[in-house]
Amino acid sequence: MSLQRFISEAVSPWMKDEGPDSDIVMSSRVRFARNLKNYVFPILSDREQNLEVIKEVRSQFNDVPDDHIGELELLEMEDLKPIEKRVLVEKHLISRNLIEQSKNGAVLLSENETVSIMVNEEDHFRIQCLVAGFELKKAFNLANSLDDWIESKVDYAFDERRGYLTSCPTNVGTGMRASVMLHLPALVLTQQLNHIIPAINQLGLVVRGSYGEGSEALGNIFQISNQITLGKTETDIIEDLQGVVMQVIEKERAARRALLDNSRIELEDRVYRSLGILENSRIIQSKEAAKCLSDVRLGIDIGLVKGLSKSILTELLILTQPGFLQQFAGASLTPTERDIKRATLIRERLELEYQLSKKSEGDEQ
Amino acid sequence: MSLQRFISEAVSPWMKDEGPDSDIVMSSRVRFARNLKNYVFPILSDREQNLEVIKEVRSQFNDVPDDHIGELELLEMEDLKPIEKRVLVEKHLISRNLIEQSKNGAVLLSENETVSIMVNEEDHFRIQCLVAGFELKKAFNLANSLDDWIESKVDYAFDERRGYLTSCPTNVGTGMRASVMLHLPALVLTQQLNHIIPAINQLGLVVRGSYGEGSEALGNIFQISNQITLGKTETDIIEDLQGVVMQVIEKERAARRALLDNSRIELEDRVYRSLGILENSRIIQSKEAAKCLSDVRLGIDIGLVKGLSKSILTELLILTQPGFLQQFAGASLTPTERDIKRATLIRERLELEYQLSKKSEGDEQ
Repeated sequence: MSLQRFISEAVSPWMKDEGPDSDIVMSSRVRFARNLKNYVFPILSDREQNLEVIKEVRSQFNDVPDDHIGELELLEMEDLKPIEKRVLVEKHLISRNLIEQSKNGAVLLSENETVSIMVNEEDHFRIQCLVAGFELKKAFNLANSLDDWIESKVDYAFDERRGYLTSCPTNVGTGMRASVMLHLPALVLTQQLNHIIPAINQLGLVVRGSYGEGSEALGNIFQISNQITLGKTETDIIEDLQGVVMQVIEKERAARRALLDNSRIELEDRVYRSLGILENSRIIQSKEAAKCLSDVRLGIDIGLVKGLSKSILTELLILTQPGFLQQFAGASLTPTERDIKRATLIRERLELEYQLSKKSEGDEQ
Repeated sequence: MSLQRFISEAVSPWMKDEGPDSDIVMSSRVRFARNLKNYVFPILSDREQNLEVIKEVRSQFNDVPDDHIGELELLEMEDLKPIEKRVLVEKHLISRNLIEQSKNGAVLLSENETVSIMVNEEDHFRIQCLVAGFELKKAFNLANSLDDWIESKVDYAFDERRGYLTSCPTNVGTGMRASVMLHLPALVLTQQLNHIIPAINQLGLVVRGSYGEGSEALGNIFQISNQITLGKTETDIIEDLQGVVMQVIEKERAARRALLDNSRIELEDRVYRSLGILENSRIIQSKEAAKCLSDVRLGIDIGLVKGLSKSILTELLILTQPGFLQQFAGASLTPTERDIKRATLIRERLELEYQLSKKSEGDEQ
């Protein structure tokens, strides 16, 4: 049953929480890369060996690891339809890699979708914890407790000098990647981000688009993560990242204030035109939709647009990705059909939102 | 009092009538160029001589020429503020020429704004009759009766062989220019107009933008008029023009049908996006506003858009010209201020329209 929910609901339950600094930070994520001591690493293993890992997981990991996350369910990639796999990628619950490169890939998903543990991706385990807002420590603590839970059942490949061993040398050491997803429309609009990114890179951090390496920053959503996993403790990595993100948040807020002070009417024009396009278009490509959604979300965050919930950007960005669109249509769609379906879906979603907002106004009176 | 009305109302009373073929033809116009026998023609005359003409007009033309048009009021350009003159141009009641080139220019305007007789423009008299829809003969008959009325009081410069004498040789003969204003969005969209215009030119007719010679076709509104004034009777000119316009109307209708049949969703997308921009923008330039208004008007004419009246295109096109905007603002405006005022005015006008339409729905129930 929960597969259905993973697939059919665009927004993971945790996304509905707002979390700290939710005007800018969408989510915080921590993931650990771990491998098993007595198994060939996935980059070298064959199907047989990967199947052994899955068996190990199926037999050992059927208790509930933590009160807060609920049960974990094992989904094997081979049992899923292409469209279902694509939807899981669009929800950031699995990586494209797990679909495209892995042999016998699987994922352990928690009911609230905060936890996803990929099996047989680049490493045997990729423990990922996703939480709403700016909550790196919360995500880190959760990942840590899951790491302990797994280690209580299996032996990790670990080296006293090098730390956790991983398929890719860039992950050796802590095996940890911590990242924060930020909505930075004002820094993009004022062309400050071009200057900020190189400065962030110099601190050993990376800035990427919202779907990870090589992806474009759809909807002005950027992910800042640590590059270095070796020679630094997990806590230092988290704290360094946290410090940089705090500075970026301040810069984005300052840029928003400056825009409101100096170009209020131009900003209003941009926000409302985008809303007008989302409410009216009959054909819309994902790039334009993302741009408009980003504008509208900015409008909500700075108080220009009323009657729309903050989560509409996240929700519609995911909902209008090809996988979800086809899931809704119940069929595979040509690019033009997708652009039509996307426009319809956005219009209907906004219409629903206005009705709910009117209703809640009515309830308040 | 009527000066106030000429200035403050964007839409001339006659524009509210729809007239025949009003899905495509906005208006039909006939104008006669006439000069007085015993006065120097305006291209050569000085201020003194022009003042004499004005005196002649003021003393002779104070009766009512025709039951249907009501009283004529004489407005002298020297008594008007620059903004007021500009508004009259934007309503097509006087020419730019009358403001910019004429010495002691004036205009006799009828209450319903169907008739405007410019005095001391390029010629002593420019008798213009404007009617809604495709009604060339109605305009012609009206202009004719005014011509007779004037000729009953003064002597025209007339030559047995050449006909009416005019300042510019291109007007000699009948002195008549007949024109039809057409909304041709589908022919523009399907790029057929580029082929049609040369064919029309070969028939001795001219296609121009809506504000006459040298003006761009704002809002896909084109004016087709006769080029030749010599060697053909007035009736032949009218009939030839009428025949060509009928063909253009048929072509535009066919193009609209083809668009609906072959690209309905793309057309809907275009129309609704334009409506969304008009309803939401906070800054809009006249060119973009005209494009959007044309799209929406097309949407109304082909039945896609409900709840908006047909005259909204004409009205808002005139209303959002610089002169009117400044008239409304009660001050002269910078280009940016005009773009803001234009957006506000369009939003408010549409809002009003929706309220009226809701109200009339309510009344019907």
